[in-house]
Amino acid sequence: MSRIAYVNGQYLPHSRAGVSIDDRALYFGDGVYEVCEVREGRLIDEPRHLARLRNSLAAVRIAPPVVEPALKRILREVVERNRVRDGIVYLQISRGVARRDHGFPQIPVKASLTVTARSIDRAKGEANAERGVKVITRPDERWAHPRIKTLQLLPNVLAKQAAREAGAYEAWLVGADGLITEGASTNAWIVTEQGVLTTRTADEAILHGVTRATLLDVAAALGLSVELRAFSREEALAAREAFFSSASTIAMPVVTIDGLPIGDGRPGPVTLALRRRFHEMAART
Amino acid sequence: MSRIAYVNGQYLPHSRAGVSIDDRALYFGDGVYEVCEVREGRLIDEPRHLARLRNSLAAVRIAPPVVEPALKRILREVVERNRVRDGIVYLQISRGVARRDHGFPQIPVKASLTVTARSIDRAKGEANAERGVKVITRPDERWAHPRIKTLQLLPNVLAKQAAREAGAYEAWLVGADGLITEGASTNAWIVTEQGVLTTRTADEAILHGVTRATLLDVAAALGLSVELRAFSREEALAAREAFFSSASTIAMPVVTIDGLPIGDGRPGPVTLALRRRFHEMAART
Repeated sequence: MSRIAYVNGQYLPHSRAGVSIDDRALYFGDGVYEVCEVREGRLIDEPRHLARLRNSLAAVRIAPPVVEPALKRILREVVERNRVRDGIVYLQISRGVARRDHGFPQIPVKASLTVTARSIDRAKGEANAERGVKVITRPDERWAHPRIKTLQLLPNVLAKQAAREAGAYEAWLVGADGLITEGASTNAWIVTEQGVLTTRTADEAILHGVTRATLLDVAAALGLSVELRAFSREEALAAREAFFSSASTIAMPVVTIDGLPIGDGRPGPVTLALRRRFHEMAART
Repeated sequence: MSRIAYVNGQYLPHSRAGVSIDDRALYFGDGVYEVCEVREGRLIDEPRHLARLRNSLAAVRIAPPVVEPALKRILREVVERNRVRDGIVYLQISRGVARRDHGFPQIPVKASLTVTARSIDRAKGEANAERGVKVITRPDERWAHPRIKTLQLLPNVLAKQAAREAGAYEAWLVGADGLITEGASTNAWIVTEQGVLTTRTADEAILHGVTRATLLDVAAALGLSVELRAFSREEALAAREAFFSSASTIAMPVVTIDGLPIGDGRPGPVTLALRRRFHEMAART
C-alpha cells in the first residue's frame, strides 16, 4: 500500500506530493509543525497538540489555513488512509507561497498545510525502553525561541547526527549557563539523588512538550515529588535516573550520558512507572 | 514571458516547479543558499559566491549535488532563460529528500538543487540610494552560526517584517553584548565621527558578505581608513554616515536609525563613492 499525504486540500500519493519552490518553509523555515502519537488508531493528547499549534501560529503571526474542526478531520483522514494503527501523524503549516522576500507576503496568501502519517513499530520502542538508551551532551546553538515549535531545526539536526555518530540515541543541549535545556527532539528529565523528579520549567528555552505535560499529570497521580527547574550535566550524571520524553518515545530511559552510567546503568523504576501509566492518563486529558 | 526555474536537473515553468514534501529544507531548514547579482547579463562576484557556497556546504556537511562547472552552466542557463539583464540569481541546496528523521539520511541521498532568477528594477535601487533608507534595531535572536548561509531565517523574517511595519527598509540586529552584528539580510557599516569606515570583523556572528568583501577592496583602492570591529547602536547614531551592503542593494545609504538622523540625514559621500566604484572593482575580482 502506498502512503497518502494531504497537501493544501488534496490527498496525494506521498511519493508525488510536493510544494511550490516558493513555499516560505523552503526559503526561510518560515513555518510551524506538530507531531502527534497515534495509538490503536486514536490521536493521543490531541487537545494539547492543537493548543500548542495555536500558540505557535500566533507567536509567528501565521493565520491558520483551516479551522480546527476541519484540521481534526484531515488528521483522521490521513491516519485512516495510511492505515496507521500505531505511529505518528505529522502536520506542518508554513506562511504560504510567495515570491522570495524576507518580510511577510505583501499580498496576503493562505498558509500551506501538509499532513502525513506513518506507522511505527511499537515493539522496537518497547525494546529500547527495556534496555535504555544513550545520550550525549552538546552546546545548545539554537535561536532565541525554542518554545515555538518552528522549522528552525538545523541545530537540532546537527546535534542528533552527532549523537548518532557517537552511538547514542539523543543529544541533550547545554545552554551558555551550563544548564541543560532539552534534547534535540525531546524534553530532558532526571530523578535526583534525593529522589525528586526534575525537569526544566517551561520557559522560552524549551519546547513545552505535550508528553512532558501529560507525564507531569502522571507524576502527580503517582504522588511523586516533582521539581520544575533546570539541571546541569553534572547533576544529571549524579542522578538516580534520567530519561527523555516526546510524542514518539513517551518516557525513554537514559542509561548513559557522554558514556558515563546513570544510577546502576539500567532503566529506573520511576521512569518505567511513568512510561507504563502514560497512556492511561493521556486517555483522560 | 513566464519564469523558468531549475529543480534537480529540470528546467520548469516557475509556477509549476516544486519539491517533494520530504525535502529536508521543508522539514528542518536543512540547506544553504546564495544570491548573486546579475548586471548587464553578467554574474557579479561569482567566484566569491561559489567559494562561500563551498564553505557553507562543508560547514553543514552536505555534498554538492553537481560539480562547480555544471553549477556555473546552470546559473547562466537560468539567467538566460529568464532573460534577466539586471537582477539576481538565487540558488538553494538542501540535504535532499528522505523520510523525516532529524539525523542525516541513513541511506545517502543526493542533495537537492533549485535555481531561480528574476529581474530587479535598477532605477528603483538608484532612487533608494539617492534618498537613503531607514533602519530600525532589533535584538539578534538567531542561532549560533549566522556565518553559515543556511535557511535558518525565521528570525531574519521577523526582524525584516518589524522593519517594514516601522516604515523602515532593514533591521540591524543587536547582540546580547550591545554590539550590532548585521542586518536581517545585509551587512552593517558606519563611517565614524573620526571618519573611519567601520564594519564588523567577519566572525561567527555574521554572514561573510561577498559584497562586503568587495567593498573592502574598493575602500582600499580609494585609500580609505578602515577598521574591522563591531560597533554599538549608540556609536552608529553618532556616526557621520551609515549604510548596509548586500548583493541586491550594493552599498545602500542609511539616513535614520530608530527614527534618529545619521549625520546630516542625507546619504554620505563615502557611502556614495563606495557604491559608485563597486562594479568597477567587482569586474576585476
